[in-house]
Amino acid sequence: MEKRNRLEELAAELIDGQNLSFIGSVDEDGYPTIRAMLRPRLRDGVETIWFSTNNPTDKVRHFQCNAKACVYFCDSLRFRSLLLKGEMAVRTDPEAKGLVWREGDEMYYPGGADSEDYVALRFRVHSAEIYGNFAKEVVPLD
Amino acid sequence: MEKRNRLEELAAELIDGQNLSFIGSVDEDGYPTIRAMLRPRLRDGVETIWFSTNNPTDKVRHFQCNAKACVYFCDSLRFRSLLLKGEMAVRTDPEAKGLVWREGDEMYYPGGADSEDYVALRFRVHSAEIYGNFAKEVVPLD
Repeated sequence: MEKRNRLEELAAELIDGQNLSFIGSVDEDGYPTIRAMLRPRLRDGVETIWFSTNNPTDKVRHFQCNAKACVYFCDSLRFRSLLLKGEMAVRTDPEAKGLVWREGDEMYYPGGADSEDYVALRFRVHSAEIYGNFAKEVVPLD
Repeated sequence: MEKRNRLEELAAELIDGQNLSFIGSVDEDGYPTIRAMLRPRLRDGVETIWFSTNNPTDKVRHFQCNAKACVYFCDSLRFRSLLLKGEMAVRTDPEAKGLVWREGDEMYYPGGADSEDYVALRFRVHSAEIYGNFAKEVVPLD
């Protein structure tokens, strides 16, 4: 329970407080791949995290072939970070796309949330690793 | 050639100019994993890049089982990033460890470069992806 509380606190600090998140996928040749993304659009605790992105991109293609994913949040000034592992679903249905759509997105997607080049990513997390003070803690979420 | 020149320029800007790099590995269950690292200790162009790290860590263990790796460098203010893919070798030999050892490391490794908890990582890069201005360029290095 104590671990779980620390995870919730760190999630609030790092997921909501940092502008960038780093998304990891595995490419078609088995190589890990990293991309910087803006912070998530929505989250339900640390179990389900939603992003928006353009389509197609390498990471969308990777996740369509292999859902295994990680997302990394890092406060480099305080040497604290959070690594979440789980499955990433590429959601092209109007309900999911509407959920992550925000005012201002029309600057990049003039066709609105229905644009084919706009998709939602739903990340279901099964484990969390907390790094800080030169130590690591694993928090299983299943 | 023009692509190659852009890559060298961006490498100088991002690899040498940013404090952090992000290392990607694949864990024993096939999930991608990301860790922030300090900037590389040494590089020969973008083909060979050396890091120092402590041992054992998850990433050292991952690379000992699966050498496929990526390293990501990102300038978030200018929306430019560089993703390198290749093979990471964990080097525990004195020659490699001496190569990456720097003054000040004894604060963390009182036993010096010979410490068992100090290792070198040698990254051999086979492809580079440059991101900037909402576009991607791939530069094969083989």
